[in-house]
Amino acid sequence: MFDKEVYISRRKALLEQMRSEKGVILFLGNVEAPAQYRDNCYKWRQDSTWLYYFGIDEPRFAATIDLESGRETIYADDFSIDDIIWMGPMPTVRSLAESAGVGNTAGYSDLQAALKGRKVHFVPASRYHTALKLSSLLGISPDLVFSNGKKGCPSASEPLVRAIVSQRLVKQPCEIEQIENACEIGYEMHTVARNGIRPGRVEQEIVGEMEGVTLSKGWGVSFATILTQHGEIFHCHSHDCVIEPGKLMVIDAGAENNMHYASDFTRTYPTGGRFTSRQRDIYTIVCDCNELAYSLVRPGVAYRDVHLAVAARMLDGLKSLGLVHGNVGDMVEAGIAGLFMPHGLGHNMGLDVHDMEDYGEDLVGYDPDQTRSPQLGLGSLRMARRLREGNVITDEPGIYFIPDLIRAWKAEGTGRDFVDYGRLEGYFDFGGIRLEDDLLVTSDGVRRLGSRRLPISPDDVEEAMRQY
Amino acid sequence: MFDKEVYISRRKALLEQMRSEKGVILFLGNVEAPAQYRDNCYKWRQDSTWLYYFGIDEPRFAATIDLESGRETIYADDFSIDDIIWMGPMPTVRSLAESAGVGNTAGYSDLQAALKGRKVHFVPASRYHTALKLSSLLGISPDLVFSNGKKGCPSASEPLVRAIVSQRLVKQPCEIEQIENACEIGYEMHTVARNGIRPGRVEQEIVGEMEGVTLSKGWGVSFATILTQHGEIFHCHSHDCVIEPGKLMVIDAGAENNMHYASDFTRTYPTGGRFTSRQRDIYTIVCDCNELAYSLVRPGVAYRDVHLAVAARMLDGLKSLGLVHGNVGDMVEAGIAGLFMPHGLGHNMGLDVHDMEDYGEDLVGYDPDQTRSPQLGLGSLRMARRLREGNVITDEPGIYFIPDLIRAWKAEGTGRDFVDYGRLEGYFDFGGIRLEDDLLVTSDGVRRLGSRRLPISPDDVEEAMRQY
Repeated sequence: MFDKEVYISRRKALLEQMRSEKGVILFLGNVEAPAQYRDNCYKWRQDSTWLYYFGIDEPRFAATIDLESGRETIYADDFSIDDIIWMGPMPTVRSLAESAGVGNTAGYSDLQAALKGRKVHFVPASRYHTALKLSSLLGISPDLVFSNGKKGCPSASEPLVRAIVSQRLVKQPCEIEQIENACEIGYEMHTVARNGIRPGRVEQEIVGEMEGVTLSKGWGVSFATILTQHGEIFHCHSHDCVIEPGKLMVIDAGAENNMHYASDFTRTYPTGGRFTSRQRDIYTIVCDCNELAYSLVRPGVAYRDVHLAVAARMLDGLKSLGLVHGNVGDMVEAGIAGLFMPHGLGHNMGLDVHDMEDYGEDLVGYDPDQTRSPQLGLGSLRMARRLREGNVITDEPGIYFIPDLIRAWKAEGTGRDFVDYGRLEGYFDFGGIRLEDDLLVTSDGVRRLGSRRLPISPDDVEEAMRQY
Repeated sequence: MFDKEVYISRRKALLEQMRSEKGVILFLGNVEAPAQYRDNCYKWRQDSTWLYYFGIDEPRFAATIDLESGRETIYADDFSIDDIIWMGPMPTVRSLAESAGVGNTAGYSDLQAALKGRKVHFVPASRYHTALKLSSLLGISPDLVFSNGKKGCPSASEPLVRAIVSQRLVKQPCEIEQIENACEIGYEMHTVARNGIRPGRVEQEIVGEMEGVTLSKGWGVSFATILTQHGEIFHCHSHDCVIEPGKLMVIDAGAENNMHYASDFTRTYPTGGRFTSRQRDIYTIVCDCNELAYSLVRPGVAYRDVHLAVAARMLDGLKSLGLVHGNVGDMVEAGIAGLFMPHGLGHNMGLDVHDMEDYGEDLVGYDPDQTRSPQLGLGSLRMARRLREGNVITDEPGIYFIPDLIRAWKAEGTGRDFVDYGRLEGYFDFGGIRLEDDLLVTSDGVRRLGSRRLPISPDDVEEAMRQY
């Protein structure tokens, strides 16, 4: 945990922002999540919102902040003597509450009575148990409190979500320190992975080696590792392929450190250690796009505009290879970049790798005067806001050749004025390339997080693979 | 997946056992389990009961078997073209159903109508989402369908649970092969761990190294790794201690292989590589108990009796050290062994490391004519049944010195005729020792699973630690 002053001041700032609201704010910590059976659970992970305001990293905690009186109460049960025989000496609820700067405690089952007849502000539920608990506490269907990701959930408190978002988007120095730590672990896991790439090995072997690093040094992975010779498949989580020479291997992986802050890096490697000239051409465009985004980031710039600048650079590069033709500005406007990069340039990162995603993506990533584009690619942009000092974002352009998508556009006639579909067919076996760093917006510009940058230029990548 | 004949014959045998029942059997596969937010999930793990009867290792599947007509139906939805762009080419529901030998398929949402007005047999829910789903399908409160582990749940079908238990307790050759594979991974993870023990290192570093092995070679850990210099704390899952010389390190850990079968081994190591004479004395008793259990296991023997024989051997050993005194038979009857080993000798193991625990421990581990003892230790025995060929069980005696427990017994006067409480105080800093192997009951005896046995005799352990 951070020092208790951190939590006290965060809650004070939240209360200040919520001062025109009535009722109580309800915070529900997580319970253990069963994997195989009820008592065989996945690795314990506390709820991120709870961690931000209370930090207590134990299951079955809840809290309220009374918006009218300002009174804060933590609800949890002490361990029995039987528990202590099995679990060893455990801190009391009172001492844990004190470590978060909260003076009032009550039993977990007292929560129901404390909410009775009050207007209750809560954020969307991220887990099924939380949805069940909210449902039973508030008498609302679980479906109405469970987040649907993009849209949050209909019953959550928008004033609360907006207040928390404005606070959590700007990282405090103590948080940046933790994210830097997660980035160090991420650097190590990617280094282990790069050194493990060798034709003939099974992908899963490398995944285990890199995930072992995250478990030795931190909580674990910050999301399911992507390690695939099919970079064009974004949600490829199978790792049973044998590494073949001549392919591109996309590794998109990050660590969550012991304080539960995330890192998230992507690199793309030639499986045999050397890029072919066709691979190098596309790789160089993606690498330029990554550098371009970095060069544009500073307070006041909308990340949506950085995405669009990257789209233009990408199309310019693809044009020089003869894969598209026409005016680059027209192509950007027509959304042609989405054929090659159907995802956004980046997202916020913090306690969650897609920070606060369950609150509703638009509330988190869009300024009130911005609306999400319906275009493929730009429409998937998770962070469009004007940047502020303290924002932590990812910079992750990519180029992919997705046969099913290319065929669909060609069949619909989409982009036929710009895209050379004949030439694209020659890339159906190419795969994809993505290159991702984590950026901190500073007072006058930007800084890459992590003390060392993973090799990224094609020459540096080949050199690093040769050395090993 | 196994060959489809495996699943067809398992379902046929189940239907045969359920032939006097009416209605339908409902099988619910798992959905993804959110960790940090809805779309950032823990590693995918299918429901074990589903895996046993259908094997399809994909989320959001369900099935029914009509007990009257014998008709089998799988309920799931095919992927859309949008999904395929993000997830790559995916097999159809029909082809997956065929791989499980099921000819009829329907949409996931057709399940509700298929159950309407029918008596529905189901096993207790292991996950909150399953409880929510059962609740919404059947109109029963989630609390009444969620397993409470020891007791199962009040609404589940006892005939179904009994039928499945009798089937799954006897492992098929194809299952034993998978468990052997999990044991090989377990051997490797324990070897990596043993080689990593060195004063000054943090426990978490070793945990990551050994868990990396499970992820490289299999699905992951079969349960949360116990690696602690406080072996007397059974549920010690923190790994932030620095390794100190002169301590005992209990490592209780296992692997789940890619087919989701478990292994589970425990070894206890002197942190500095050599046992003190006090450690060696206790260790030798535990080691003898492990060997004794192995020597007694064969078809027809009740594992409860093996537990009691081990208790007697343990008390005999402790008596020779002067920690208890009196007639060993009397001590066994008085439950004195529970002070030193408050857990049972072992449990069933298969697709779950505590196989089928959520069905209700007594239904799984006790013959109809056996009742669970109220005594500490024996009362925690998860597997008491008369052994049958094909049973896979753990053999895991242990001796612990738990100051809070010893003080409680002393204060109550429990065991005062037998226990030398004065001498026990000298062991308050001892910790604990547990030694665990995985056993297969054969036609005429027993076999340890895994091609190699982890070093276990005190001399072999010291030798293995010296070599590295």
